[in-house]
Amino acid sequence: MQAIQPHIDAVMGFQVAGTNVGLKRDGTPDFALFVSEGDCTAAAVFTTNHVKAAPVVVDMEHMETHRQRIRAVVANSKNANACTGEEGISVARQTAQAVADALACEPQQVLVLSTGVIGVLLDVERMKLGVQQGVPILGDDWATAAQGIMTTDLVSKLASVSVTLPNGATFQVAGVAKGSGMIAPNMATMLSVMVTDVVLPADALQMVLNTVNQKTFNSIVVDGDMSTNDTVLLLANGASGCQLQTADELAQFEQALYAVCRKLAQDIVRDGEGATKFITLNVKGCETDENARHIAHAIATSALVKTAFFGADANWGRIIAAAGRAGVPFSPDRSRLTIEGGELEHPTPSAVTIFAQGKPTAYSEADATAIMQQPSITIWLEGGLGTGQAQVWTCDFSYDYVRINGDYRT
Amino acid sequence: MQAIQPHIDAVMGFQVAGTNVGLKRDGTPDFALFVSEGDCTAAAVFTTNHVKAAPVVVDMEHMETHRQRIRAVVANSKNANACTGEEGISVARQTAQAVADALACEPQQVLVLSTGVIGVLLDVERMKLGVQQGVPILGDDWATAAQGIMTTDLVSKLASVSVTLPNGATFQVAGVAKGSGMIAPNMATMLSVMVTDVVLPADALQMVLNTVNQKTFNSIVVDGDMSTNDTVLLLANGASGCQLQTADELAQFEQALYAVCRKLAQDIVRDGEGATKFITLNVKGCETDENARHIAHAIATSALVKTAFFGADANWGRIIAAAGRAGVPFSPDRSRLTIEGGELEHPTPSAVTIFAQGKPTAYSEADATAIMQQPSITIWLEGGLGTGQAQVWTCDFSYDYVRINGDYRT
Repeated sequence: MQAIQPHIDAVMGFQVAGTNVGLKRDGTPDFALFVSEGDCTAAAVFTTNHVKAAPVVVDMEHMETHRQRIRAVVANSKNANACTGEEGISVARQTAQAVADALACEPQQVLVLSTGVIGVLLDVERMKLGVQQGVPILGDDWATAAQGIMTTDLVSKLASVSVTLPNGATFQVAGVAKGSGMIAPNMATMLSVMVTDVVLPADALQMVLNTVNQKTFNSIVVDGDMSTNDTVLLLANGASGCQLQTADELAQFEQALYAVCRKLAQDIVRDGEGATKFITLNVKGCETDENARHIAHAIATSALVKTAFFGADANWGRIIAAAGRAGVPFSPDRSRLTIEGGELEHPTPSAVTIFAQGKPTAYSEADATAIMQQPSITIWLEGGLGTGQAQVWTCDFSYDYVRINGDYRT
Repeated sequence: MQAIQPHIDAVMGFQVAGTNVGLKRDGTPDFALFVSEGDCTAAAVFTTNHVKAAPVVVDMEHMETHRQRIRAVVANSKNANACTGEEGISVARQTAQAVADALACEPQQVLVLSTGVIGVLLDVERMKLGVQQGVPILGDDWATAAQGIMTTDLVSKLASVSVTLPNGATFQVAGVAKGSGMIAPNMATMLSVMVTDVVLPADALQMVLNTVNQKTFNSIVVDGDMSTNDTVLLLANGASGCQLQTADELAQFEQALYAVCRKLAQDIVRDGEGATKFITLNVKGCETDENARHIAHAIATSALVKTAFFGADANWGRIIAAAGRAGVPFSPDRSRLTIEGGELEHPTPSAVTIFAQGKPTAYSEADATAIMQQPSITIWLEGGLGTGQAQVWTCDFSYDYVRINGDYRT
């Protein structure tokens, strides 16, 4: 596998476009098309929120019947088309129909994504305009397409990677994503469209996506809220002709998809609303992975922990207190909490253990504060109860989060 | 029952004191004593956090063996004596012993409360100093005692009420409490000491406290975090001689306790860290009360909902989205969301229904914004699935919450 790239040059057999249809008043892209020349197998993960936006409802139907031959994804920002009743469903269907008409395929071969404000009817004429404007300019401009799905994101999020198998066959995995509020794990999180030119049946594609999604998009927390629109899509058009026949080849594809999803997921956290710090939480030594996830989630969503990170205060008591209220077994007497600056897989000699055996160690407060002042911080919490573990990426909670969300609609 | 009072004049057979022992550097009270002349029956609710502070561990032991004859409560602020290992337990025990020595009772007849920063050893000499200073000044100065347990609270919280039974017997219920961060329902929340001069066995007292606590202290949310120290204590010394013998008399006591707890719980929310608005959330029409509580809690802890309240933005989509991710059945198509300014039990003609049957109504945005600009707002969310209901009191999420918690330790 080559190094992961923060851009997408071209993916065989896929064309994209981004354009403005008047949803964003500043004229920047608010609409995107992702089109495959031929039929794709597709995998998807959707929000588990009981309140599902119209495009999610429609996509679930389309995936049910047509996941072996998806052709396109159409997306808009600034309007979530959520809580818009039957009219909203109709708008999503008409949008798919407009794309299908332009591509001469069935509407069920088109998936629809929306993101933005909830409860405002999406003007279908704008979506039709987007199709009209977008189809003629379909090409390799992934950067503009990625902008088309941005809402409060400050930067666009793209990732791509190429893999050459031992037999010489080459394939690509590439994707775009958007954050950056209403982000929490244990669900399909935010919007992401990923594409690959590999040959893979829809069921296998879905299995790989489920595995990778759990470790990446489902392992990020910005604010603990879950959107009505969260969707991760993965299309495989087989254009490379590259078949994945051995377990090893499939593992290489999974690795490539993991690299892309991890990059996009971490980008979402880095660009979290108001975020000033990137935090990697490693919870280990729990009875089960599930328990470790609960503890990591409790810590990552704690407003007290997040504001302490913002204040560069090594207030480890809040981390331990959050772990204790996660609703799963946790023993402070067996626990050990270690922090270090940077993004690390394992602690190095400069790591500082601040809590062990039920009480603070004789750590230097100056060392701990120096770590907390760094832009990236890694935390290890060892529970001493088993081998279950989880990794979660999160950010701090700043004045800007309050500012951004105190006047998002207005 | 007379009207609830925001102060405590005197409660027969109880004496209190507040003093400074050097934990608060500005000389304001940081230590409090609550002493009964005779033995009390006692009831208690403790944090369900797996990480329990030393005083909670010690109190649970004392309640196990001595809940029929508790004599005193000793409390300090600025230091939670949590995550302090065996030494912390020893400090809590020595504190109880110091009070017992002064009152000539057993240490197990003393309950200990601490609140403040986690993980710093509490200096037992300061606690002994508090006993030394406090015992000679025991009296009716509840206002100073209430100050002794304040941390980031801006105002002290006191409530009292008198009840005269049809047979002419009179009793009192009074209490103090402190908030104002790490507050969430579904647990024993924050610190509160309540006293009554009624005659009631410990088991009956505990039953009444459990019922009332669930509807009051367990129904408030400031930030969704759960403390290691949350404790609610209720002591009954029987000094009034007032026996509660009929179901109706017991109900009058429960009503009085509810009035005191409700007042203190609401005071905690009003004084929530950085709070600018008081929000009453009524969730109705769920399959069970439990489900309604889950939905109310999801809304009350949502950072997106809370920042929208701060911004006076009637962003109802965030409320519906939070309800949808509560993990219990919720149907947007059957739901109805109504808002109104003020603290109300039922909507009046000036209430505005903004969402019904899966989509926004034709409400006036100006009306909704006018409601959101009020200091108190009541929300009704009708689920259309059953008769389960819950009421939760919460506050908004402001710049000041971030400021207060970004530099709490320093």
